Amino acid sequence: MTAVDVSAESLSEAHRARAVILGVRPEIDGGRYPIKRIVGDTLEIEADIVGDGHDVVRAVLVDRAPGGPWRETELVHVGNDAWRATIGLPALGRHHYSVIAWVDAFATWRRGLERKLAAGVDVTVELLEGALLVAAAHDRGGDPALANAAAVLGGRGALEQRLELATSDALAELVARAPDRRLAARYRHDLEVIVERPLAACSAWYEMFPRSTRSDGKHGSFRDAEARLDYIAELGFDIVYLPPIHPIGMAFRKGPDNTPVAGPDDPGSPWAIGGPDGGHTSVHAALGTLADFDHLVAAARAKQLEIALDIAFQASPDHPWVTEHPTWFKARPDGTIQYAENPPKKYQDVYPFDFDSADWQGLWRALRDVFVFWCERGIRVFRVDNPHTKPIAFWEWCLREIHARYPDAIFLAEAFTRPKLMYVLAKAGFSQSYTYFTWRTTKAELEAYATELARTEVAELFRPNFWPTTPDIFPEHLVNGGRAAFELRVVLAATLSACYGIYGPSYELGEHEPRPGVEELAHNEKYQLRTWDLDRPGSLRHVIARLNRIRRAHPALHGNRSLRFHQTDNDLVICYSKQTATDIVLIVVNLDPHHSHRAWLTLDLAGLGIGRDEAFQVHDLLGDARYTWRGPRSFVELVPDQAPAHLFEIRRFVRSENQFEYYL
Amino acid sequence: MTAVDVSAESLSEAHRARAVILGVRPEIDGGRYPIKRIVGDTLEIEADIVGDGHDVVRAVLVDRAPGGPWRETELVHVGNDAWRATIGLPALGRHHYSVIAWVDAFATWRRGLERKLAAGVDVTVELLEGALLVAAAHDRGGDPALANAAAVLGGRGALEQRLELATSDALAELVARAPDRRLAARYRHDLEVIVERPLAACSAWYEMFPRSTRSDGKHGSFRDAEARLDYIAELGFDIVYLPPIHPIGMAFRKGPDNTPVAGPDDPGSPWAIGGPDGGHTSVHAALGTLADFDHLVAAARAKQLEIALDIAFQASPDHPWVTEHPTWFKARPDGTIQYAENPPKKYQDVYPFDFDSADWQGLWRALRDVFVFWCERGIRVFRVDNPHTKPIAFWEWCLREIHARYPDAIFLAEAFTRPKLMYVLAKAGFSQSYTYFTWRTTKAELEAYATELARTEVAELFRPNFWPTTPDIFPEHLVNGGRAAFELRVVLAATLSACYGIYGPSYELGEHEPRPGVEELAHNEKYQLRTWDLDRPGSLRHVIARLNRIRRAHPALHGNRSLRFHQTDNDLVICYSKQTATDIVLIVVNLDPHHSHRAWLTLDLAGLGIGRDEAFQVHDLLGDARYTWRGPRSFVELVPDQAPAHLFEIRRFVRSENQFEYYL
Repeated sequence: MTAVDVSAESLSEAHRARAVILGVRPEIDGGRYPIKRIVGDTLEIEADIVGDGHDVVRAVLVDRAPGGPWRETELVHVGNDAWRATIGLPALGRHHYSVIAWVDAFATWRRGLERKLAAGVDVTVELLEGALLVAAAHDRGGDPALANAAAVLGGRGALEQRLELATSDALAELVARAPDRRLAARYRHDLEVIVERPLAACSAWYEMFPRSTRSDGKHGSFRDAEARLDYIAELGFDIVYLPPIHPIGMAFRKGPDNTPVAGPDDPGSPWAIGGPDGGHTSVHAALGTLADFDHLVAAARAKQLEIALDIAFQASPDHPWVTEHPTWFKARPDGTIQYAENPPKKYQDVYPFDFDSADWQGLWRALRDVFVFWCERGIRVFRVDNPHTKPIAFWEWCLREIHARYPDAIFLAEAFTRPKLMYVLAKAGFSQSYTYFTWRTTKAELEAYATELARTEVAELFRPNFWPTTPDIFPEHLVNGGRAAFELRVVLAATLSACYGIYGPSYELGEHEPRPGVEELAHNEKYQLRTWDLDRPGSLRHVIARLNRIRRAHPALHGNRSLRFHQTDNDLVICYSKQTATDIVLIVVNLDPHHSHRAWLTLDLAGLGIGRDEAFQVHDLLGDARYTWRGPRSFVELVPDQAPAHLFEIRRFVRSENQFEYYL
Repeated sequence: MTAVDVSAESLSEAHRARAVILGVRPEIDGGRYPIKRIVGDTLEIEADIVGDGHDVVRAVLVDRAPGGPWRETELVHVGNDAWRATIGLPALGRHHYSVIAWVDAFATWRRGLERKLAAGVDVTVELLEGALLVAAAHDRGGDPALANAAAVLGGRGALEQRLELATSDALAELVARAPDRRLAARYRHDLEVIVERPLAACSAWYEMFPRSTRSDGKHGSFRDAEARLDYIAELGFDIVYLPPIHPIGMAFRKGPDNTPVAGPDDPGSPWAIGGPDGGHTSVHAALGTLADFDHLVAAARAKQLEIALDIAFQASPDHPWVTEHPTWFKARPDGTIQYAENPPKKYQDVYPFDFDSADWQGLWRALRDVFVFWCERGIRVFRVDNPHTKPIAFWEWCLREIHARYPDAIFLAEAFTRPKLMYVLAKAGFSQSYTYFTWRTTKAELEAYATELARTEVAELFRPNFWPTTPDIFPEHLVNGGRAAFELRVVLAATLSACYGIYGPSYELGEHEPRPGVEELAHNEKYQLRTWDLDRPGSLRHVIARLNRIRRAHPALHGNRSLRFHQTDNDLVICYSKQTATDIVLIVVNLDPHHSHRAWLTLDLAGLGIGRDEAFQVHDLLGDARYTWRGPRSFVELVPDQAPAHLFEIRRFVRSENQFEYYL
């Protein structure tokens, strides 16, 4: 009795692959989204590969730098059918990787031969089989020497010589170089890794309104901002981030503290983008010219600072596109254009773009070209305003387009939104993202959140950027916490996350008067000019400068994956470490800005790679005190007004006492 | 400045989907493999779906029974962008499911309208917008009443009436029935669930050599086996599994206890399949005819027993296919056929099939047709010998073919091999699998292994079948453990796993003489005829009969996902429970067959759904004792020779004392 094939599936060559590649790690959402690394990183890939029975499986990782050819790296079996390889990532851009696996007939044969020899079994026929396998390798374009080897194995020479050749590594290697991959399996996806420059993963940001950089109360310019660069460089930041620098609309312009009507001298919110002078590719006349802007960018670069622009995809009613491309906005039945709103609030000064526009392709390309415009002027760092209110598919397309042309471009997502939406923006290609750090204040909250970010799959794709405050958010705990609260929050931000930022000079000066009823500062720079006395007593500038110097000097602080929390017996004292092979830092912070706290720490010495009985020195890089500790238990006391935090470098002693001569 | 599209990717309609479906659970290996359920199950599906911004997302689960049309079930948002739906699985076979999601413009509009009304904002234009949305729903083939609704919303009637209509659930429902899915996203995979009959997930197996069913020492037949059915039915098993019933080869036939040369009366191993009388679709003449076999199958069915066949894809040198299809075997350079070997052992009585044969398609189809042959004779349960030594792709193809035609067929994989290979065979379609239970003896080992099987992703696809022994494996701990060891192992097997089996009558009679040097019983039935005294004193038949009756009566024991371990303060006492909404069983086993043990149990009452101060009755279904317990701590003592295990039914009291009248 013979059954017909009952399914539509016929038996194709694809059925003959004997090795099954079950899964590859890391892999995000079944291969749908890329992981992220920085250039120069090594990428460790693991794959679960199963062959039936006992035949020898071989596997290679294949990877390809952007525009390059596929490269192969041998995967090594590390136990329980898991295989591993490590590759370098020498180039910026989107690399791809996959896995190829096959059953290796020659290696299987050789292993069987050796087992039979060990068991004293006759192997005459095995040698003939080996000769056929070697000849086949030759016929596949293998080394010419294989022809002779096949003849020797299958010939009538002395058995001892034939066996020596059969079991030699040299022959195995020659055959391995001409593998029989006709029935090889290739993993079902090509996986992607976005390789960015180191700044994408480790960066200190300083946000500043260029128009508030004068001391005489007048509208500041790019030139005035340029004069501020030395101060920022001295503070040790990497990136100077400017709110939108474009012409600001007059229609429905907001007054101080978001009052509905602006006076004639009110400068308006920089996020109401566009006026008669232009839109997203123009600069506000009061700030200067594009040439002035270029000058600022060059001056910053000379001081090792990069200028980051704020890209906010929305328009004031005065934006040129409102008349040039009316279809890019949503028309209402009464002929008006839909403005932004969050009932009962109305933002008549802001028109959202209609991403579903009939001319959506034209709009999407124009928005992409805003990035292209600024990239062409040398900008490579962008803070993107509210990306979560634009289609995810737009970002995935747009960031891919920009990355293909400017693989050194870095994008920070200002997405204060639901967790999965934040993460999917990272999956769509954003380099970094704002986070919930701003509101996480208790030890339990900080530990849980930082662990999720640093020690779960999230770390493969989402790079957190911790901000204690922004122009939009001035959280409750800073209102009455005093200088100690500002200090402890910036220490947490700068050490829990390799990327962090402050909104200055407001932050270092401890500005803390809230606007009643909202989570913002009074006299918000979003709506008015401010002047700042940078030398105000109590400024945190020296603490921050020291913090940034420590960050630069300590590779342990350049990433988050080594983050480890250590027990303390006081819920107001948090303790954590970061480490590399050669660098360990240990941070202890008093989370209470009002009271001194003492705590016993219980360090995870094994995690730190320190012996249980080994003495080690801890050197407080913020306060300069040094202590010698031994064993997991140590005592600390933190006084808010003196030092709310320790930032210890842990130094292991090069020699222990029993290595000294008098011990020998 | 305008950039050209830098990537090859152009902007297609696919970019316009606003909802992103990140992942669906359950999903195995990124959707590559099916999950498993039984008919009548409900399947709960969860999906992570993210829309940008704040627009209202709608989503449906789509599923399709085998050969049926796609059906839709609304997904409900359960928080944190997770959505859930539950569907029934009314039919056997391979069902498919996926997710469709889209932004719902009308629901978004309605929510905005309600917020504006609550805020006292003028909504005149909003009503006009609503009218357009309702008219569009009508134009998409919506209810005729929508035309009038649009006219009312957009008309000049009383505002109050227009608002009442605009915010009515009735209108929302009508519009929802004509959704605008032009820009809907569909999940990137159609996922698969193999729906089998209940026996696939819950079954008690009894393995028996039909040739050893006589008491006079002669070769038993199907007729003799039939006489054994009452005994097996009385023991309460569901499935009678027969080792291969085919003609046995004469060439290189093995003698008693696997000696290399058989005497003239030695019956040979049933796994050396094939002789002049035929191969995998013939029956051994000494067992009877195909008609006798059919009679046995029918007799079993009359007693609620199913016959399971052992399908071993290998051939004795006398198998007809050796001459009919020489290309299905591997020819060696000396003209011989490759026999099975595991150096230094040689199995010259067994030829493996060459799945890489030049005529591999012919071979694969012939092997599939072996299943088809026996399915056509009414067999629906197969124990497959050593599936892990055949290509995984073969099984995936073959089981799909058989399931398409016989969706009630059940396959047990005899794969004692590496864990990932065992699991991938389950992914390829095997209904059940042998496990490592046979060697797991300590509390820690049993807890870890049973938890992996019952409470991880493994439970989605791999159904364990626990066997204390097999003809191939007689583990060390049963050699000297006495009756108590046999009893405790069968209690563990029958309660830790919804599928279990014993190799009888050897097991219930406590046969325990090992063959020296191997993990097998002496006088192994694989190589010789045995006679069994079923009434031998000390037989476990009554314990096993009771155990199987309890299993049938208690739905809690019909699955594994509710398995929960409870703390005991004695490492030799294990305690676990299984439960359904209406049934709770609690099992306590003394793992030491030699000594009595006492233990304090600490029950996870919350997990069991029992109040901390609630009194409950435990009724030992094995021993009939009843106790009233209250609170998590209880004391047990287990005496191996009397009762090595308790199998408690937990009964909650219908009323507690404070519900009685005198309390009111």
